[in-house]
Amino acid sequence: MMAAYQDLSREELLELKDGLTAKYEEVKARGLKLDMSRGKPSTAQLNLSMEMMDILNSGVNLVCEDGVDCRNYGGLDGISEAKQLLADMMEVPRDNVIVFGNSSLNVMYDTVARAVTHGVMGETPWCKLDKVKFLCPVPGYDRHFAITEHFGIEMIPVPMTMDGPDMDLVEKLVREDESIKGIWCVPKYSNPQGITYSDETVYRFANLKPAAKDFRIFWDNAYCVHHLYEDRQDYLIEILSECKKAGNPDMVYKFSSTSKISFPGSGIAAIAASESNLKDIRSMMQIQTIGHDKVNQLRHVRFFKDVHGIVEHMKKHADIMRPKFETVLRVLEEELGGLGIGSWISPNGGYFISFDSMEGCAKAIVAKAKEAGLVMTGAGATYPYGKDPKDSNIRIAPTYPTPEELEVAAEIFVLSVKLVSIEKLLGNL
Amino acid sequence: MMAAYQDLSREELLELKDGLTAKYEEVKARGLKLDMSRGKPSTAQLNLSMEMMDILNSGVNLVCEDGVDCRNYGGLDGISEAKQLLADMMEVPRDNVIVFGNSSLNVMYDTVARAVTHGVMGETPWCKLDKVKFLCPVPGYDRHFAITEHFGIEMIPVPMTMDGPDMDLVEKLVREDESIKGIWCVPKYSNPQGITYSDETVYRFANLKPAAKDFRIFWDNAYCVHHLYEDRQDYLIEILSECKKAGNPDMVYKFSSTSKISFPGSGIAAIAASESNLKDIRSMMQIQTIGHDKVNQLRHVRFFKDVHGIVEHMKKHADIMRPKFETVLRVLEEELGGLGIGSWISPNGGYFISFDSMEGCAKAIVAKAKEAGLVMTGAGATYPYGKDPKDSNIRIAPTYPTPEELEVAAEIFVLSVKLVSIEKLLGNL
Repeated sequence: MMAAYQDLSREELLELKDGLTAKYEEVKARGLKLDMSRGKPSTAQLNLSMEMMDILNSGVNLVCEDGVDCRNYGGLDGISEAKQLLADMMEVPRDNVIVFGNSSLNVMYDTVARAVTHGVMGETPWCKLDKVKFLCPVPGYDRHFAITEHFGIEMIPVPMTMDGPDMDLVEKLVREDESIKGIWCVPKYSNPQGITYSDETVYRFANLKPAAKDFRIFWDNAYCVHHLYEDRQDYLIEILSECKKAGNPDMVYKFSSTSKISFPGSGIAAIAASESNLKDIRSMMQIQTIGHDKVNQLRHVRFFKDVHGIVEHMKKHADIMRPKFETVLRVLEEELGGLGIGSWISPNGGYFISFDSMEGCAKAIVAKAKEAGLVMTGAGATYPYGKDPKDSNIRIAPTYPTPEELEVAAEIFVLSVKLVSIEKLLGNL
Repeated sequence: MMAAYQDLSREELLELKDGLTAKYEEVKARGLKLDMSRGKPSTAQLNLSMEMMDILNSGVNLVCEDGVDCRNYGGLDGISEAKQLLADMMEVPRDNVIVFGNSSLNVMYDTVARAVTHGVMGETPWCKLDKVKFLCPVPGYDRHFAITEHFGIEMIPVPMTMDGPDMDLVEKLVREDESIKGIWCVPKYSNPQGITYSDETVYRFANLKPAAKDFRIFWDNAYCVHHLYEDRQDYLIEILSECKKAGNPDMVYKFSSTSKISFPGSGIAAIAASESNLKDIRSMMQIQTIGHDKVNQLRHVRFFKDVHGIVEHMKKHADIMRPKFETVLRVLEEELGGLGIGSWISPNGGYFISFDSMEGCAKAIVAKAKEAGLVMTGAGATYPYGKDPKDSNIRIAPTYPTPEELEVAAEIFVLSVKLVSIEKLLGNL
């Protein structure tokens, strides 16, 4: 059992540093190119869906259930069977779903963009307001923050707890401030911590009393079926029906996609919301497009058949991902356990492991890892404006490297953590 | 040879009306459901591309030229070979192209939306300006007008001539009014008239001296390869290179897609513009999406191989479409020729025949046709705000019905024109 680094003397730290530096230089000399920066499925995972490429062919009828020829124009809000498939996955009625193209990020961007230029359900367009704010649970997803920053929306960080965002703070802020128009949530296997919002958190969300009529919860359920274990699965209460029960049917936009189920570049995305919200969305969508790719919607339905097909398919993903998560978690535990220089959460699903270094070390750790050939998500990326006030959170994305690469990547990471932590303790940072 | 309707006496008109009404009631009693409202390819045309469904399968490598796995995230602005294919089709260098998803309408909408919220290349966002105006050559494309109307942009109609928009007026307006930020153009086989802009018109476009720095020509080259005849093809000068030569490299956004080449619901779309424009677009696109459907881009490239593949493919479309255009034109000529109650243009390509009735008759003709089971594009649709000041333009879209349906549809149309024209001449409208 190693002693905690804080308890070591200056001499002991310097000695430790010498040994670690030698190891670090050795691995650096290998000129590796490793990447744990993005939540990207691996090639092995992509291969799981290759039969989807065979499911439609020139001998297959491309007319969908309700008689629409998927090849032609039309079908603004998606084909009926694709709505059903994604509705079942998203645990909502089919009539509450619109199916889009290949990117839920694009759907979220467009949803904010519509609110900026035209307003939400008849309310003042956000571009006409002096100030618009969003709550941002932190750490969170950098691409969410990029959208709100792009539209000049002020972002207010709200700390995450193991039950989800700090709901005392969320309730207080939305009740008091009419300029708060939204909150970004990844409610299940959150990005990056892998936390699933507790029942109480979801109830409190559904019962929010926002000052702004056009306040919306942006509920990005990106990892709804993305479990790592069959026997350890988080359960998330369905927000649409809770909002309805609470008399707030219009308060939530729910997003999801098959990006990390079939192909990230060529999946299908969806929004689920109340009928009034969908009516509002459709009225603007019809100006933007005649319809999204219905052939690809049909391809997904014919391949997965129904939500059970998706569930079975996700088990295959889990079989590939689980060992990778376990490798990283093992190396973290073996190499950093008890040293007092970092903490992390072991998730039951999702795509990330969230690591917290000693304060003021994250940027240096990511730089150190990069120097040895390992690209991590930029430190600070998990906070609005890229500013982690403690400079401590690092998002680890273990899915893309091969298992062999991952072992090395994890080693480089812990070496970087140790070396930077020593510098910190030596007062050199 | 029939006498012109204007030359007939009241009695002759009434007698004519009786005979035509009998024919009309007869066809109406058949309870037909015919549609000449939208520029939709027919099922026979869709069948031309069915082999595209076989081109990618589980045995095929989905890695593209530059080593990107098309199945995964990434590739913001399109895969290199898809850029090449669409660049060749759009007659521009590959580096001037960004490839998007399935809808050029969506690309145009997003281009206007970005200008509204963020401005064009550093200029003031349009939403911050008191007034933004677009020039709209008329008759034109209703979905273009819907976009500008949606964003509260004032539309100024500019009459079309057989050489394109009235350039004296365009030059004067853009030179004098800084609030004019754009013009909608369908420069080849225009929607709905099938007119191709003359060389002089294109030169004058390229040499415009707009008061607004952020004035852009929205050059929707939707029908660039959509000829009806091998021996009668219109030629359009390439605008990007003309703008560059004229010292106005950034003044044009060019749009195109394969919607009416492969599948309307599942094609690929592109924008071509100067490097500075593309840089501006990419900087915002990267917030909106991680990338469009690269697998579908690859599918298109592997199917068509190169632009010659597209040209050959378009000949097959023409073989299906030509007889339909000829049927409508023949019926128009046989039934309305010399009557002085309508005029039309015989196009060499595109998707429409533009018909001009006597003043004040278009809405009544469309209603009359609808009563007999034939849906036409709404009268007025070819003008901004749906307001055709003369109430005379009707867009005929002959592609979707089968040849048999089309013969009947054309008959219903000319019957409706005749009956409404008689009412007009009788002073009943």
